[in-house]
Amino acid sequence: MARLKLYLSYDGTKFRGWQRQKNTPHTIQEVFENKLSIIANSRVSLMASGRTDAGVHARVQVAHVDVPETTLRLLQPSPLSMITGHAETRLQQSLNSLLPPDIRLLRVEQVDADFHALKSAKKKTYVYFFNPNPVQPADLRNYTWHLKLPINWDAVEEATKYFVGRHDFKSFCAADAPAKSTVRTIYEARWGIVRRQGIGAPCDLRVLRVTGGGFLKHMVRCIAGSLIFVGQGKDSPDFIERALKATDRRAAGPTAPPHALWLWDILY
Amino acid sequence: MARLKLYLSYDGTKFRGWQRQKNTPHTIQEVFENKLSIIANSRVSLMASGRTDAGVHARVQVAHVDVPETTLRLLQPSPLSMITGHAETRLQQSLNSLLPPDIRLLRVEQVDADFHALKSAKKKTYVYFFNPNPVQPADLRNYTWHLKLPINWDAVEEATKYFVGRHDFKSFCAADAPAKSTVRTIYEARWGIVRRQGIGAPCDLRVLRVTGGGFLKHMVRCIAGSLIFVGQGKDSPDFIERALKATDRRAAGPTAPPHALWLWDILY
Repeated sequence: MARLKLYLSYDGTKFRGWQRQKNTPHTIQEVFENKLSIIANSRVSLMASGRTDAGVHARVQVAHVDVPETTLRLLQPSPLSMITGHAETRLQQSLNSLLPPDIRLLRVEQVDADFHALKSAKKKTYVYFFNPNPVQPADLRNYTWHLKLPINWDAVEEATKYFVGRHDFKSFCAADAPAKSTVRTIYEARWGIVRRQGIGAPCDLRVLRVTGGGFLKHMVRCIAGSLIFVGQGKDSPDFIERALKATDRRAAGPTAPPHALWLWDILY
Repeated sequence: MARLKLYLSYDGTKFRGWQRQKNTPHTIQEVFENKLSIIANSRVSLMASGRTDAGVHARVQVAHVDVPETTLRLLQPSPLSMITGHAETRLQQSLNSLLPPDIRLLRVEQVDADFHALKSAKKKTYVYFFNPNPVQPADLRNYTWHLKLPINWDAVEEATKYFVGRHDFKSFCAADAPAKSTVRTIYEARWGIVRRQGIGAPCDLRVLRVTGGGFLKHMVRCIAGSLIFVGQGKDSPDFIERALKATDRRAAGPTAPPHALWLWDILY
C-alpha cells in the first residue's frame, strides 16, 4: 500500500457534512471515497484533518488515504496537462471528472506512511464571513452570515481577545462533542474587512480568522455566535471571559449558522 | 395607479429563467410577482428590461410595475433603516423577507407613467465569465464556464471586433427568437481579466463584456460560444465575419452554457 495526501475543496451547501454516517447519504467523505474506490479499484477509506458540519465549506481540506501501489501510476501527468501545460495528475483529472462539481481535488502527492492528516496537523485556520450590508447578494446567500441589525465592532474586537491562548472551550462546543478533553489552544483570532469582487456585486464583508491547534465540534460557530451576541449589545465584551470560566455551554452565546464558515488552511 | 422602477438581482441557478410561463413553475417573474401582489394587495404584473434564460444571473435587472396608490406609503424608510442608517424602504424590507434568498430587491423608486423598463432602455451590458484554470473552484461552478482546453486569446480578441457595430445577428440567436428584426447594434465588446477574491480561493477569470442597444434570444451565448470556437482553433477569426454575413444560425458556433452569463447593467 502507498499513502497519498489529498488537498480537497468543497462547497458544503448540499452535503450533510464531511463525516460518513450510517443511514445518512450524501456526505463529502462518502461521495469522495466512492469515486476514489472506483479509480483505485479497491475499497479506500479517507482520514481528514477534521470533520466539517453540514453546510460548512472548505477552501482547503486535507485528507490521507492508503491505496494499492498500482494506483501510483496515476500520479503521472494527465494527457490534458501535456497540452495545457498545467500541472495536473491523471488521478486529479479522473477524480474531478467523476466527482460532482461541488467537490474538487486540488492536488495529490505521495507521503510517508507516518503522515496522518489529523494527528500531523499543527495548526488549522477557519474563516467566518459576515455581511453587515442591508442586502445579502443572491449569490452570497450560501457563503456569508447576513447581519441585519447594527453591530458594535469595537466591542466585538475587544471580546475576541479573550479567546487567544490555551483555554477549556467546554462552553464553546456542542454539548455532545466527542472529545475527551475540551482544552484547546487558539494562536490567533483576528478581524478584517475583505472586499468580495470579480463576480457579482462588489461587497465589503467582515471576516473572523481563527487559527488554533485543533477545534471541537461547533467551536468556531460558538465563538462567532457569541461574538455577535456581544456585538449586538446583549452583554459586555468580558462576557467571553466569564463564559470561558463557566465551562458550561449555556454560559456562552448562540451557535452561528454553518453556511458562512470556511475551513481555510491546515499547517503540517 | 403609480409606476415603480424596481432594481432586482438574482442567482438564476434554480430558476427556469425570467419569463413567466404557463405550466412551468419557478420562474423569477412569477415568484417576484406573487410576493409583490401579496404586499400590494393587488394582482401586479412586471415588465423587465428583457428576459434572461434559465441559469442566467442578474447583477442588476430592472423592471417596472404599476401598483395601487396605497402602495406608495411603502416607499417610506423601513423601521430597521432608522436603526441601521441604511437607506431601505419598507417595500424593500418586506419583499426581501418574503422572497427566496436567490432573488433580491436592491432598490425601488417611483417613476413617471411613460417610463418603460424595456422600451426606455438605451443600452444593456452583459458579462460572460470564463475560467481557464485547471480546476473550477467548487463555489464558482454555477457562475463561470470552465475551459479545460487551451484557448488562443489573441485570436479570440481579433474575432471579437467583428461584432461591434450594427449587424444582422440572425446567425447569433436562437432559431426560434421571437423578434421581427434581427438587426441589433453592439456598442462595445471587450475582453478583460478579473481576479475573483474575497471569498473562496482567489482565481483569475477571463471576462467578455458586451454592451448593446438590445439583444436577441441566446445572442450573448451564441457570441461567447462562437468566440471560444475560434479560440480553440476550429476556425480563423474571420469566421465571425463570415457567420454574420450568412444570416443563418448554422453558420455560427455553438451556444455557450447559460450559467456563466450575467446581466450586468442597464442604461436608461
